[in-house]
Amino acid sequence: MSHPKRIAACQDALESEGADAVVLFPSVDMGYLSGFTDEPMERHLFLFVTPDRPPVFVAPTMYESQIRDESVVDDVRVWDDGDDPLVLVEEIAETRNLHGGRLLVDDRMWARFSQDLRAVLPDASFGLASDVLASLRIQKDEAELNALREAGEVADRTVMAVRRLGDEVIGFTETELAQEIEAQLAKFGGNGVSFDAIVGSGPNGAKPHHRHGEREIRDGDPVVLDFGTRVGGYPSDQTRTIVFAGEPPEEFDSAHRAVRRAHDAAIDAVEPGVTAETIDAVARGVIEEAGYGEQFVHRTGHGVGLEVHEPPYIVAGNDRELEPGMVFSVEPGIYLEGEFGIRIEDLVVVTENSYERLNDSPRDWGPL
Amino acid sequence: MSHPKRIAACQDALESEGADAVVLFPSVDMGYLSGFTDEPMERHLFLFVTPDRPPVFVAPTMYESQIRDESVVDDVRVWDDGDDPLVLVEEIAETRNLHGGRLLVDDRMWARFSQDLRAVLPDASFGLASDVLASLRIQKDEAELNALREAGEVADRTVMAVRRLGDEVIGFTETELAQEIEAQLAKFGGNGVSFDAIVGSGPNGAKPHHRHGEREIRDGDPVVLDFGTRVGGYPSDQTRTIVFAGEPPEEFDSAHRAVRRAHDAAIDAVEPGVTAETIDAVARGVIEEAGYGEQFVHRTGHGVGLEVHEPPYIVAGNDRELEPGMVFSVEPGIYLEGEFGIRIEDLVVVTENSYERLNDSPRDWGPL
Repeated sequence: MSHPKRIAACQDALESEGADAVVLFPSVDMGYLSGFTDEPMERHLFLFVTPDRPPVFVAPTMYESQIRDESVVDDVRVWDDGDDPLVLVEEIAETRNLHGGRLLVDDRMWARFSQDLRAVLPDASFGLASDVLASLRIQKDEAELNALREAGEVADRTVMAVRRLGDEVIGFTETELAQEIEAQLAKFGGNGVSFDAIVGSGPNGAKPHHRHGEREIRDGDPVVLDFGTRVGGYPSDQTRTIVFAGEPPEEFDSAHRAVRRAHDAAIDAVEPGVTAETIDAVARGVIEEAGYGEQFVHRTGHGVGLEVHEPPYIVAGNDRELEPGMVFSVEPGIYLEGEFGIRIEDLVVVTENSYERLNDSPRDWGPL
Repeated sequence: MSHPKRIAACQDALESEGADAVVLFPSVDMGYLSGFTDEPMERHLFLFVTPDRPPVFVAPTMYESQIRDESVVDDVRVWDDGDDPLVLVEEIAETRNLHGGRLLVDDRMWARFSQDLRAVLPDASFGLASDVLASLRIQKDEAELNALREAGEVADRTVMAVRRLGDEVIGFTETELAQEIEAQLAKFGGNGVSFDAIVGSGPNGAKPHHRHGEREIRDGDPVVLDFGTRVGGYPSDQTRTIVFAGEPPEEFDSAHRAVRRAHDAAIDAVEPGVTAETIDAVARGVIEEAGYGEQFVHRTGHGVGLEVHEPPYIVAGNDRELEPGMVFSVEPGIYLEGEFGIRIEDLVVVTENSYERLNDSPRDWGPL
C-alpha cells in the first residue's frame, strides 16, 4: 500500500474504533504511515492523524525540509528551539475538537511526551496507536513479502558460509565471529544488521539475550548464532546452534534434536484459523515431553515486519487467529545454565491454506 | 558515585520531592541507578525504587541472570512469557502503598507501559523520573570527567587525522568518509560511535540532521563533520566544518568566521551562576549581528553525559544556572538552504570559577 492509502486506512480505522486521533512520535509507525521517521528524540515531533482532515506534523524547524522531502504529509507546523511546541499542539487540539476526545498515542511514545499531551488535553482519554495500526501492519502485501524473502535468503547464505569455516572459527572471540557474520551479510546483499547479532558460545548460549563478548570459541562449544539483516527495509531473523569442531557435551545432541522436533512440529501446525497460542503450545509440548519444559524460558516466536519484534506474538494467552499474510518467527530453545543453550529459528508466512518458510538452511549442528 | 550510593541519593530525593516511587524502564537512568540496562524492549521490565525499602526489579525470566550479574539489586521478581507481568506490579503496588501515590516514571518509558501502570494504579498521579534523577546525573564526578576528557581527546585526534587527508577526500562519498572517521575513532582508542556520524557535504550540510549519503565530496565543498565515540561509557561530540580542497563558495569564509566568533564568545561566557539561556543568547547575538540570525535554526547546545543529549539544554527559556560539574556542548551554526552549512561544536565543563574545554583541535576550515 502507498503511504496515502495507509493514511486513508488509518482514518477509516479511527472512525470504526470511535477514536479521534492517532498521535505518533518518531517510530516505525510514523514511517509506515507518512514515509518520514527518525530515531526517537528529545524534541517534540508529532504526527496527528484525524478522521476528517489531512494529517499534520508538529516538528522542530530543523526537521522541516526532511519531512517535506520524505513524507506524503503537506501540513508541517514548525517550532524553533526556545518556542513552546505545545502551543502548536493546543491549536490542533482546538481546530480538530480533540478536547474530551479519545487519542491513540504511539505505543513507543516516551512518557515525557505522553505526559505533555495529557497536560494539554486533561479531559481526553488515551489508548494506543496499535489499536488501529497493528491490524494494518500485520498483513504483509506482496512487495513486503518479497523483501522478507530476500532478507531470509541473505541470512541463509550467510549462516551456510559461516558454518563452512568449520574449525577455522576455533579461537575466534564471539565478537570476531559476529563481525564475520556482519561482513558476510553485507557481501550477500544485506543492508546492515536488523539487530546486534547474538553469538553465544558455551555457557553464554544459555543466556538467551547475551549478545557477543570476548569469550573465545573452543572445540566442542555449542554456539548459538542469531542474526539478521535488512533488504528493502524488511528484516531477516534466523537462529542456528552450531558446533564448529570437536565433540559437544554429552546431553547436547539429544537436546538439539528435541528443539528441532519442536521447531518442525510448530511450523507444521501453522495455517489460517489456528491461534497464536496453539503454535506456542505445540512447540512447548514437544520440549516438555523431552524433559526440558523448565528450560524453555521464552515464548515460541514474534511477528516480523518493519520491526523485528511486532505482533503477532506466538505466546500462551494470545488467542489471535493466524491470517494469510502474517509473518512470524518460530524459535523454541533449551537453556542449561552454566553449560550451553540451543535455539533454532526460522521465519514463516501464513499462506491461504498453509505456510511458507522464509529460511531453508540446514538446521542440524555440525560443520557443513 | 557507586550504584548503591546513587540509589540512596534517589531515595532521599524521592522523600524531599514527596513522591512515592521511581519506576524505570530499560534506559540510561536504569543503568545509572542499578548497573543493569538493555535496549528498550517490548516486554515488561521495570525497576521500582521507593524511599524505605530496597529497590526491586520486575523482569522477564530470561533476563534474571543478567540482572543478577550486572546490577546491585537483589530483589528480582520474574515472569514467564504467557504470565501477566502486571500481577507482579500489583503486588509491589500493594506492599509499598503506591495506590493513590505519586509515581515518577522513566522519561523514556513507552506509552504501552506507562498506560499499563496507569491501569494498575488508576488513583496515582504521575510525573517524570528526571524530576529526581536529572539533578543527580547533571553533576559529573571526577571519574566521569576523566572519561569525557579521554573521549574528547580521541575525537580531537580523529578530526585532525581526517583533515590531514586533504584532497585525498575528494571523490569519497559521505558514507565512505563516515566509515573512515569510525575507523580512526577506533584506532585512537574509542569504543564505537556515540551517534551515527554526520558528514554533510555542500547543500547536505544545510540540513542539520542529515547523516551521510551517497553524495561525493567535491572541490570547494564545505563539509560538516559531527561525530563522537565513547570511552568508559561516556561520549564525545564535536563538530568541525572543513573544506578539504579547492575554493569554497564566496560567502563561506565570512560566515565561518561568524560561527567561530559566536562559539568562542559563548564558551567565554561559561561560569557558575550564569543561566543556560544566557549562553544561548551570547551565541545567537553574535550570529544575528553578522546577519545570519534566521539561519541559526537550533539551540546552542545540550548537556552530555551517559546520554549524548541530556540536560542542561542551552536554549532560550532555560533559566537554569550553571553549576560546577555540568558538561555541555556549545555548537552554533549557520545553514544556507541549497548551498552549505556551518557548525562548530566543542564540549565544555563548568569549573569552580570558569570552564574547561574538552576539545582543542583547530576550529578553522582549511586542510591541516
